[in-house]
Amino acid sequence: MNDFSANDGKRRPRINDTHVNLSHGSGGKAMRDLIADVFVGAFDNPSLSALEDQAVFDLKQLGTHGERLAFTTDTYVVDPLFFPGGDIGHLAVNGTVNDLAMSGARPLYLSCGVVLEEGLPIETLRRVVESMRQAALAAGVQIVTGDTKVVERGSADKLFINTAGIGVVPAGINISASRAQPGDAVIINGTLGDHGAAILIARGQLALQAEVPSDCQPLHELVAAMLRACPDIHCLRDATRGGLATVLNEFAQSSQVGIRLQEQTLPLREDVKGACEILGLDPLYLANEGKLVAVVPGEAVEAVLAAMRALPAGRDAACVGRVVAAPRGAVILETGFGGERVVDMLVGEQLPRIC
Amino acid sequence: MNDFSANDGKRRPRINDTHVNLSHGSGGKAMRDLIADVFVGAFDNPSLSALEDQAVFDLKQLGTHGERLAFTTDTYVVDPLFFPGGDIGHLAVNGTVNDLAMSGARPLYLSCGVVLEEGLPIETLRRVVESMRQAALAAGVQIVTGDTKVVERGSADKLFINTAGIGVVPAGINISASRAQPGDAVIINGTLGDHGAAILIARGQLALQAEVPSDCQPLHELVAAMLRACPDIHCLRDATRGGLATVLNEFAQSSQVGIRLQEQTLPLREDVKGACEILGLDPLYLANEGKLVAVVPGEAVEAVLAAMRALPAGRDAACVGRVVAAPRGAVILETGFGGERVVDMLVGEQLPRIC
Repeated sequence: MNDFSANDGKRRPRINDTHVNLSHGSGGKAMRDLIADVFVGAFDNPSLSALEDQAVFDLKQLGTHGERLAFTTDTYVVDPLFFPGGDIGHLAVNGTVNDLAMSGARPLYLSCGVVLEEGLPIETLRRVVESMRQAALAAGVQIVTGDTKVVERGSADKLFINTAGIGVVPAGINISASRAQPGDAVIINGTLGDHGAAILIARGQLALQAEVPSDCQPLHELVAAMLRACPDIHCLRDATRGGLATVLNEFAQSSQVGIRLQEQTLPLREDVKGACEILGLDPLYLANEGKLVAVVPGEAVEAVLAAMRALPAGRDAACVGRVVAAPRGAVILETGFGGERVVDMLVGEQLPRIC
Repeated sequence: MNDFSANDGKRRPRINDTHVNLSHGSGGKAMRDLIADVFVGAFDNPSLSALEDQAVFDLKQLGTHGERLAFTTDTYVVDPLFFPGGDIGHLAVNGTVNDLAMSGARPLYLSCGVVLEEGLPIETLRRVVESMRQAALAAGVQIVTGDTKVVERGSADKLFINTAGIGVVPAGINISASRAQPGDAVIINGTLGDHGAAILIARGQLALQAEVPSDCQPLHELVAAMLRACPDIHCLRDATRGGLATVLNEFAQSSQVGIRLQEQTLPLREDVKGACEILGLDPLYLANEGKLVAVVPGEAVEAVLAAMRALPAGRDAACVGRVVAAPRGAVILETGFGGERVVDMLVGEQLPRIC
């Protein structure tokens, strides 16, 4: 397959087309010019300019002392492409960076596969690629290999992006959804549901004066700081589609433990809370794009929270619950009024194309 | 993000839905049931059942003696999904296996990111996933991590698949599009254009009695045999979109050499030749999905051809051209009648959504 690196990486033609057409996916000259102009210039790095259909790295550089390799993938179909606080390009880089980070890995290399709809303005593509470039730079990762497909008008909605990623997990880190145990504490790094609310408002489905920015951000430096404070973090996952409730149900089921949440400890923006009340949405299920959920040994809570709060991405970090022996596999919310209710997996769809 | 491994991997609910709906992309219960039923059962392996959002491997197992890691990605949007000789599932596995193989790598692990259109029959998805399972088994790779997105009816055409892949390049292999030099020979492993013709006929765009099967197949074992015969293979690339002409132009430009092809040596199926004549298509530009182009030192030609012909994927291997000093960056076809013409990069689109 012809990929981003399948061009000479030296001549950078500036294409004159204003919109994507089918020849941009042909494998021929138009595709190579699009890639050379739009992608290679933005993502410039030695692997991408090496002219091959795959990026190749020295294994020894990755680690020789018990490190492990992490590998993940995500496709992004968010609608609209641009929203307060980010766009599909930021999302595509940060989402995959975060999936790597949740294993404790240092994210290193990303791939980028795009599906373009015929007729997409080239300027839109340039904006998205520029966001990817900035996000990759900010996260310290390189986009080293890619692929471009074009489909006829009406066969895709504007632009979809897949990013796969690889990273290196330091020796001695053992994070898994199955390691939660009674006595552990549940920690999150900030307010819930910002991304979901941002998309909802950006779609015009909610007539709100306020503009809620997405929380889209990379979390690997926060994770590294948390691991320095407590190398024995038990579980870690980013609360994207399905929100906090979904992640906690995954932890409870995989670890066969109960999890009790304290409602009054959950950080929520006032405008997100308002939007949820108006629309009957539960912020526990709203998507986030810069929030993680950690399960840590009870005695490590203060050290982990202190480490988190020292970084912008962890400024609003809070301990929101605890792991208990029973009921196994269930998540219970303790409400402000002394009551409690089961927080189940999301059934049905709350908000399609959120990421 | 919730991925294929984000489920308990033990209970395998059989979903009752007959068609994909938006809740299958929600991050909630419907998505997890779809993944557990359709994907995890088919792709079953320890990494996928490890319940995490990323697959993690011991770096030491990958190599400690100068091996390198290869990383690639491709999105598949072929239309129709099913065609003689294969389907989008075979393509998604073999295409990425081949991109890894072209660096000399042993393909190891694949990711799988799908975009599903609301309303897609679940049975169609099952058939495609079964093809991916079979192709992965045949190629000796594991599909270790994944992602599922669902978009509204009309926002995508049925099903798109992205696969990224990683593999290990043995020490001492140094394949690159920039290594062709005068005196080298150009070798291909069989008939040209079969995949392009198969898709064309499957679309009903050509009323032919004959059914041409796609050549979709994995090529890594063929490459391994070629490297045993000649560890110093200079260039290697699979001739997919854009066909043989595109790959040779890439080699000629990257290496700053000329390439001369002998028309009468090019292997062509009679029915593909006929289809091209009727439609005015040039088989040099038609897509292949199981054909590679190698540039090898002149003295190694016979050894490489012998090694190739010993395997089914190389049965029709042939030396089709030679590398010359000039004209730099150009590909020249010597016709059967003593004439010659320049074979340029493809301009415009010959056949959209071929892969």
